[in-house]
Amino acid sequence: MKSTDSLEDLRRRMAEFAAEREWDPFHNPKNLAMALAGEAGELVEHFQWLTPEQAARLPKAAREEVALECADVLLYLLRLCDKLDIDLAQATRRKLVLNAKKYPVAKARGKMTKYNKL
Amino acid sequence: MKSTDSLEDLRRRMAEFAAEREWDPFHNPKNLAMALAGEAGELVEHFQWLTPEQAARLPKAAREEVALECADVLLYLLRLCDKLDIDLAQATRRKLVLNAKKYPVAKARGKMTKYNKL
Amino acid sequence: MKSTDSLEDLRRRMAEFAAEREWDPFHNPKNLAMALAGEAGELVEHFQWLTPEQAARLPKAAREEVALECADVLLYLLRLCDKLDIDLAQATRRKLVLNAKKYPVAKARGKMTKYNKL
Amino acid sequence: MKSTDSLEDLRRRMAEFAAEREWDPFHNPKNLAMALAGEAGELVEHFQWLTPEQAARLPKAAREEVALECADVLLYLLRLCDKLDIDLAQATRRKLVLNAKKYPVAKARGKMTKYNKL
Repeated sequence: MKSTDSLEDLRRRMAEFAAEREWDPFHNPKNLAMALAGEAGELVEHFQWLTPEQAARLPKAAREEVALECADVLLYLLRLCDKLDIDLAQATRRKLVLNAKKYPVAKARGKMTKYNKL
Repeated sequence: MKSTDSLEDLRRRMAEFAAEREWDPFHNPKNLAMALAGEAGELVEHFQWLTPEQAARLPKAAREEVALECADVLLYLLRLCDKLDIDLAQATRRKLVLNAKKYPVAKARGKMTKYNKL
Repeated sequence: MKSTDSLEDLRRRMAEFAAEREWDPFHNPKNLAMALAGEAGELVEHFQWLTPEQAARLPKAAREEVALECADVLLYLLRLCDKLDIDLAQATRRKLVLNAKKYPVAKARGKMTKYNKL
Repeated sequence: MKSTDSLEDLRRRMAEFAAEREWDPFHNPKNLAMALAGEAGELVEHFQWLTPEQAARLPKAAREEVALECADVLLYLLRLCDKLDIDLAQATRRKLVLNAKKYPVAKARGKMTKYNKL
């Protein structure tokens, strides 16, 4: 675990990147949510014609492209949280606690039924 | 900056959550890319009828809902990277370097033109 | 209104297009839902950095690109319905009837509140 | 093929629905593109944990839910085209012609390679 896998560090780098380019006026939450959805769409396109088996063992070049799409998703996600003053790491830990209540091990084991139908 | 804002820490927590519930057979990259797109869609829904101004100053309850949607996006993103053996923090830093080349400050300042049209 | 704005006509053209290319093995509902989400992501990207005002008066070239993205969404939507044996026109009329119940004019007028909070 | 599977007929019904509820001020193209992406995300969620085989033979209740999600996608798509003055049926026929050039039968048969890599 390196110091540089900190979300705060990545958030700050992305904020500097945008500030240098004077992109803040474009980076409002509505636009950033759209940009994130666009990147999620690009990510999905990498997998759409693959069988689950093929998707699980991507050739190296495809895996590298997917890695960079994942990076784009994270960058817009961090930017969105930054602009909304959301602590992403804290929200994520909190969501895991909520999910643990919604999906108790005994009920959820081995199935993907939505919590309100468990 | 707390130690717990580490992506590796969140990745491990999510992996444990899934393992306890025996969800690994469902968590293949194709399915996870879809789940991430689904969460991105939910995120966008929070903003779709708001003006950019309204989106920038969400009421507290809405902001909390958005925070948890952002958490969902990150959880599936970490899970996807885990399954594809992608180092998300490293890919993100790499993408920022690539973006800096694609969008030189002098050319990109103050505009959102795509790099291939700059 | 021309005869050729029939959904059945477009469905059939798309089915022939796919059959000629032997794409049916790839066109299962899971893959088609992903392809549709990918196209929706591309559509959103056209608008993400525009103000609502700019988005409402696209230059001609951009409007033409958007028109073709809209076509892609419809083609995958028709293909998905075809593979699931869903009558899209009938489902759409049915949905309008359901929506009219969920959003009675007197309650829904002038606001975008979700039906369960009206 | 009934007269009522006409896109123009559905477009008009949706326009009336929105007008009665005074929703036009919210239905600008930026917002509608977001709403469409949101619905595409909901559609994808129905399939995300299913194998391709399960997705191809949905139980009746699930198929009905999917049909209504498909309707939502079409309604926002028609609305978006309406607001941008795009003739969706015509754009779709045009896109099929373009696709036929990008994917010649002899080259594209039996594979999903993107046209620029064919």
